[in-house]
Amino acid sequence: MKKYDTLVKNAAGRTVPEEINGRKHVPFQGVGKHRPQGRKHAPLIPTSLDYPADGNKTVASLREALEKAGLQDGMTISTHHHLRNGDLVSNEIFKHASEMGVKNLVWFPSAAFPCNAPVIDYLEDGTLNRIEGSMNGPLGKYCSEGRMTGTAVLRSHGGRYQAIQDGEIKVDIAVIATPTADPFGNGNAVDGPSACGVLGYSLADYQYADKVIVVTDNLVDFPCIPMQIEGNFVDYVVVVDKIGIPEKIVSGTTRITNSPDRLLIAQLTSQFCLETGILKDRGCFQFGAGGTSLAIGHDFHQILKEKNWKARFAFGGSTQYMVDMIRDDVMDYILDAQAFDLEAVRSVRENPNHYPVSIFHAYDFHSKGNYTTMMDIVILGATEVDINFNGNVVTHSDGYLLHGIGGWQNCLHAKCTILPIPLFRDRIPVIKDEVTTLCGPGELIDVIVTERGIAVNPRRQDLLDRLKHTGLPIKTIEELKNEAEKICGKPEKPVLDDEIVAAIKWVDGTVIDAVRKVNP
Amino acid sequence: MKKYDTLVKNAAGRTVPEEINGRKHVPFQGVGKHRPQGRKHAPLIPTSLDYPADGNKTVASLREALEKAGLQDGMTISTHHHLRNGDLVSNEIFKHASEMGVKNLVWFPSAAFPCNAPVIDYLEDGTLNRIEGSMNGPLGKYCSEGRMTGTAVLRSHGGRYQAIQDGEIKVDIAVIATPTADPFGNGNAVDGPSACGVLGYSLADYQYADKVIVVTDNLVDFPCIPMQIEGNFVDYVVVVDKIGIPEKIVSGTTRITNSPDRLLIAQLTSQFCLETGILKDRGCFQFGAGGTSLAIGHDFHQILKEKNWKARFAFGGSTQYMVDMIRDDVMDYILDAQAFDLEAVRSVRENPNHYPVSIFHAYDFHSKGNYTTMMDIVILGATEVDINFNGNVVTHSDGYLLHGIGGWQNCLHAKCTILPIPLFRDRIPVIKDEVTTLCGPGELIDVIVTERGIAVNPRRQDLLDRLKHTGLPIKTIEELKNEAEKICGKPEKPVLDDEIVAAIKWVDGTVIDAVRKVNP
Repeated sequence: MKKYDTLVKNAAGRTVPEEINGRKHVPFQGVGKHRPQGRKHAPLIPTSLDYPADGNKTVASLREALEKAGLQDGMTISTHHHLRNGDLVSNEIFKHASEMGVKNLVWFPSAAFPCNAPVIDYLEDGTLNRIEGSMNGPLGKYCSEGRMTGTAVLRSHGGRYQAIQDGEIKVDIAVIATPTADPFGNGNAVDGPSACGVLGYSLADYQYADKVIVVTDNLVDFPCIPMQIEGNFVDYVVVVDKIGIPEKIVSGTTRITNSPDRLLIAQLTSQFCLETGILKDRGCFQFGAGGTSLAIGHDFHQILKEKNWKARFAFGGSTQYMVDMIRDDVMDYILDAQAFDLEAVRSVRENPNHYPVSIFHAYDFHSKGNYTTMMDIVILGATEVDINFNGNVVTHSDGYLLHGIGGWQNCLHAKCTILPIPLFRDRIPVIKDEVTTLCGPGELIDVIVTERGIAVNPRRQDLLDRLKHTGLPIKTIEELKNEAEKICGKPEKPVLDDEIVAAIKWVDGTVIDAVRKVNP
Repeated sequence: MKKYDTLVKNAAGRTVPEEINGRKHVPFQGVGKHRPQGRKHAPLIPTSLDYPADGNKTVASLREALEKAGLQDGMTISTHHHLRNGDLVSNEIFKHASEMGVKNLVWFPSAAFPCNAPVIDYLEDGTLNRIEGSMNGPLGKYCSEGRMTGTAVLRSHGGRYQAIQDGEIKVDIAVIATPTADPFGNGNAVDGPSACGVLGYSLADYQYADKVIVVTDNLVDFPCIPMQIEGNFVDYVVVVDKIGIPEKIVSGTTRITNSPDRLLIAQLTSQFCLETGILKDRGCFQFGAGGTSLAIGHDFHQILKEKNWKARFAFGGSTQYMVDMIRDDVMDYILDAQAFDLEAVRSVRENPNHYPVSIFHAYDFHSKGNYTTMMDIVILGATEVDINFNGNVVTHSDGYLLHGIGGWQNCLHAKCTILPIPLFRDRIPVIKDEVTTLCGPGELIDVIVTERGIAVNPRRQDLLDRLKHTGLPIKTIEELKNEAEKICGKPEKPVLDDEIVAAIKWVDGTVIDAVRKVNP
């Protein structure tokens, strides 16, 4: 059903299609090699004549808004994932589309969650042709087994902005779940029963889409302040009972790991950062919301406090641990495109030093610079790495596509990229001869920290030099791999079908790898 | 020197050129009649590869930045006017350009002030071909006397955004004087020795220009928070000793008029608003920073307080009088694109309910709606009005072009537009048979308030009905005109040359009138 006549070997040695879903794409040219051509996507010029003079853009229902927006076959519909696993809006869109008999839509979410599993019904009935976005859990399994009509395209968060900005993806209708909004379409995520803090993944959607629908469960009088969504870009406002399930939108608390192995990995990572001097006064870093990352953040906090240092900023996803760093005066600012817990939501609402920014600002590679290259340290995960330091974050070693790229590829551009990962998971080694799917080239991955030792990319002789007189357990990546294989045995490579079910984009819009169908 | 072979009569009956400075323009079609075609201007796609990885975009001097930005003959250079009569940056640009031998530039400021008079030297030596922007004071005189090589084009603030957005003006280099900035180019106007509060006139410039230069006298470490200017759009950052003369940027205090006539006009205006019910609980309004306007704002404040009403918002330019309304809890929000005094600057820095917005949000007619049509009341000035309620804000009755349009045309779209004006100035009546220059069609001007009576546009029978049992001195506009002429005599119309020195745009980009050369 999906034929790719012209496959080419890209600069990373991966065989990828040149045409995906009927459109040409450039194969990966190497890190920093591809230069964009042309101009940004130009939306149609609107006129105020077409919008109500009283500023009231509310319509009775999402169905009516979709109809007025001209929903029709083949359109691309975008959504954000700020409501995470509590999202009550995205599935509704395709339920209405299915009822309207619309076919062959493309869903372009900034991420999908297990709560989006019902979308499979609309892939099955032909309402949806494909999803271009992260494929988490059930959707990933569905895609991996070759059941989706079109080919999935996975992009990093920054790459998603880039694709919209550059006109690679034309969004016909953006549907923006907005925790608080006014009738003009201004909105924010700091107030309302479904408050999720920030809406930093929505900027490209509402700036570039032909039609923009704001869906809220908390309508306030104009002006809704702050305006994280700008009503001047909005066509319709829909008020519904509930846009999200609060306890699934934000976790009440995000927690540090209590696994001894993970805590050891965290401690080695923090020590590494301190001993190499990359953790320092006035520095900046990014760590995620996973249990190990939070433990590292907690360590950083203690180190800064002890040294009487003050970090300049951290880039979110934000958590209570980051908020505590501002409260304890060991950090000036949080720049934030996503809030993970209630404390972070409160902080972004109340503290002007917890500053909302968008993915454009932080991650867009086709921008006049972005924040990633300024970061001293970023802490990332991976499902696999290989002996050339290449990283995989989307597929498991059995070939199943179960995760999105998130901001992972974007963050690789930091001054020091560290992957604190266990040597094996469920007795499957994490370090391979070759990653199942290439998401990030090894030249951008600097350090692998495991519970049994730290491997530094040989390209980073500067870091190795600084480690000479430390007691840190520095090993080669091959040594780490061998250790794992001694314990778990060498895993067999999965036998995958030739059929391509998904393409993986690099931050510059080129195709870095393709994902093959799994034979279940 | 400026030939206009094809002059046409537009829908307002004004004779205007179809081609201006070698480019076709649409004549005014009537209020709400022109529909834009096509797509917004699309800037070139940049790549982070071309920007320093450490985020440091500083260069040694403005001259170097202009050279790196590729300044060359015929380019359009934009600036903002937030430093008002204390601007030390704009003139410098053209000094450097002149020294570099560059010719035929277009200066595209959001407004010009008397401090910009030195620019005349660069109009004289051929560095500049023309100015497209407000022509205040000496520049206006220069233009009026036909001494500028190209034809001036005057636009409203919203029309300026529209022109950039729609690609009618392509800005080659935007130079943004920024009171506080970081090396990446993020900037704001709330901090630094030249703080001017907000930078709401710069958005189109930095989003759409090919090259963007930030000039600051207060460099801070990344990230500069708040980011009123977003560094992701910025190419170069220049640090200079001084971007502005503080006492000329903001007035220490803005003052209510103490003229008895003006106070009477203000009192009549407030009473009119109250008696007609257009001043009300939860309402919104805009009044400027002139002495009469401030008196009206002060009256509104007292009325709201007495009635125990609370206004929802006022749109700035902001002053201490507006700030007092928030402090006294008679108003929820100030939406602000321009701060006029020190108290307003302090407020926008400290009070989250004093919210910076851009001209795009407030005024762009080619947007999905804007704020102007939502305003219950706007208070505006005029140099002349005529018996058909047409208004002029750019020329004096002697034909001299001495003022810019500002937000005046945009504000005319409010629910009730009120012009509180004296019946005569320097013994010259303000109400004419026909305005010298048409800036705003009479169908959008609702009320003229003078010290000798109030004229309501007959189109607003609804207002006239509500006034029936009030003691307000309601007169026809002809009665007011006759009263003035009885006192001052009927002024002679100026005899102007045929040569067109300036075109006046309407909010939708069409040409509403042309300004003729004065014979001095």
